Amino acid sequence: MSLSRRKFLSTAAVSSTAGLIMGAPHVARAQSTQTFEWRMTNAYGPGAPFYVEGPGSPTDFCRKVEALSDGRLKIHHFAAGELIPALEGFNAVSSGMIEMNAGNAYFWAGQIPAAQYFTTVPFGMNTQGMNAWIYHGGGQQLWDELYASRGLVAMPMGNTGVQMTGWFRQPIEGIGDLNGLKMRIPGLAGKVYNELGVAVRLLPGGEIFPALERGVIDAAEFVGPYQDRRMGLHKAAKHYYTTGWHEPTNVTELLINKAVWESLPADLQSIVRTAAMACNLESQAWCESVNAEALADLVENEGVIAQPLPTEVVERLEMVTAEVLEAMASEDAETRKVHDAFMAFRDKHASWAGVSEKTFLNLRA
Amino acid sequence: MSLSRRKFLSTAAVSSTAGLIMGAPHVARAQSTQTFEWRMTNAYGPGAPFYVEGPGSPTDFCRKVEALSDGRLKIHHFAAGELIPALEGFNAVSSGMIEMNAGNAYFWAGQIPAAQYFTTVPFGMNTQGMNAWIYHGGGQQLWDELYASRGLVAMPMGNTGVQMTGWFRQPIEGIGDLNGLKMRIPGLAGKVYNELGVAVRLLPGGEIFPALERGVIDAAEFVGPYQDRRMGLHKAAKHYYTTGWHEPTNVTELLINKAVWESLPADLQSIVRTAAMACNLESQAWCESVNAEALADLVENEGVIAQPLPTEVVERLEMVTAEVLEAMASEDAETRKVHDAFMAFRDKHASWAGVSEKTFLNLRA
Repeated sequence: MSLSRRKFLSTAAVSSTAGLIMGAPHVARAQSTQTFEWRMTNAYGPGAPFYVEGPGSPTDFCRKVEALSDGRLKIHHFAAGELIPALEGFNAVSSGMIEMNAGNAYFWAGQIPAAQYFTTVPFGMNTQGMNAWIYHGGGQQLWDELYASRGLVAMPMGNTGVQMTGWFRQPIEGIGDLNGLKMRIPGLAGKVYNELGVAVRLLPGGEIFPALERGVIDAAEFVGPYQDRRMGLHKAAKHYYTTGWHEPTNVTELLINKAVWESLPADLQSIVRTAAMACNLESQAWCESVNAEALADLVENEGVIAQPLPTEVVERLEMVTAEVLEAMASEDAETRKVHDAFMAFRDKHASWAGVSEKTFLNLRA
Repeated sequence: MSLSRRKFLSTAAVSSTAGLIMGAPHVARAQSTQTFEWRMTNAYGPGAPFYVEGPGSPTDFCRKVEALSDGRLKIHHFAAGELIPALEGFNAVSSGMIEMNAGNAYFWAGQIPAAQYFTTVPFGMNTQGMNAWIYHGGGQQLWDELYASRGLVAMPMGNTGVQMTGWFRQPIEGIGDLNGLKMRIPGLAGKVYNELGVAVRLLPGGEIFPALERGVIDAAEFVGPYQDRRMGLHKAAKHYYTTGWHEPTNVTELLINKAVWESLPADLQSIVRTAAMACNLESQAWCESVNAEALADLVENEGVIAQPLPTEVVERLEMVTAEVLEAMASEDAETRKVHDAFMAFRDKHASWAGVSEKTFLNLRA
């Protein structure tokens, strides 16, 4: 401690009440005045709530960085299609054409299968577990290692929280009801459903509603109550399954070209890291708030039936998920390494979550 | 959009691969060079993990602010007793003697009863709900309003997550087992236990272990597995109740003198807000990670029996909590206003959490 209480009190006695400045007067410092203008592309289209606009979104991140740096780092944001197509962010950033991209690591499954573990894993961890793993459970180090050889650096910049299983035109009463169903569902969950006889369809967001309404598909997954209501999915199907088994969290990835990242002064690197962490929290808080409102509206005013999948169905999905993940890990050494680390942390976290969050949520009506 | 795709592509073609700087070269800017040196006091003692030291802690916040501002805002941190006693932060900051304090809003229950709602409410909201309410459900506005007339500004800077009900020398099998029990428990939960015949003791942290070991008290609440294990509480009692009814979340408060806050340039205000938000997330992630490890160790290696309170006991605690909160709200107009807003948001959030987090945590083993 550099000041004794006695010295503090005697100093305080002669200072004004509106802010005691310790010892030294305000001084002019040799502040770095170098400015940077970067571009950020995005896997999501113009105006998309959460993914592009709103609290904790990528455009909010760009605003925060500009404010924090007093304009020394200005990031120009381009939604999908404005500069490059939706899913070309990985190539644009790793080649150095673009400095940053916003999206989800699981979009790069073709280039790096293990990247999927940094977005979400079916029956994996919820948002709290995912943040614990990435920030303080070894996840970020594995992510760094995985991306370094591709000339990339990445970190979390947002989270939708747990997603909903999705919309079904008919209720799911047993495992047999999945057989032959046509469903819009991306990612690992699609592989799992496919094993159970679901005909998986990969439709872009804008095509989901008309396909579901006309019966071209029988079921569809999108995000959660706020985003799903905005697309009108409740007008095409009334059975809204809640279980969230396939995406118990969903991390927005901030992807950065490693060479330009390393050229950034330390204070601007701190600004990027801290703004991304703040956006991660703020986007989660925003989702929790708007999903709560939207779900209440869907159930109370739109006749939506929100319920979990039957236990038999969930248990079968969990078994098939374990097989699909194991097969994926067996094919690729990088995936094996990340899979094993993820699962070890997941098991430990599940036991803590089981007596903390789970106990609390179950005791409260 | 300021650039067409065509223009981008032609520009990109002539740029190097390691980072395309848009149009303008690096320019020298008129950067504010005014520096600030502030002091932060803390309600917790030197070296306390989470409350003073470690990821997302108040000292980490001070480091982040200094890095983000490149040294333009330097905050000197003083743990409890180093400059002022533990709970004098409110008076020191509101009088302007000190610029900032780290602690919990419920410590100011004597000055502002409604402040308690900004730390935790028994049977209230979990961490996700609390963040949703404060950042995007109207909570921050109510907090601002409550503190403005006291010359203060406050915001969240950390969160321990859900806490544990605590340590009991004998198992609690029914509501009658609480009657006559001597328990260390602070805050609103103490009032609730008191109604059920518990003799409430307010002991400082350092006195909990010897009192519990010698049988001076029969039960004690502190924080969660990591902090509790560090104090050795498992060596004095083996029954660790998990329910977390009394503190389903616990917000660290960053308290700031309003006049000095308003004198801060906009970019430094952004830095303080963003660093506090980042620390809020990072401290949660750290707690989730270390609690998971500590709980596994306590159960597997220390013979600790971790279980929820019996349903009968929880239901009675919930009923008495509602009465205690209602009585408190009836005595004070400010508390009534905050109470009603908190409870309205809580009910809406509980219905969303019930079909999302709760469903997911229950389906996973």
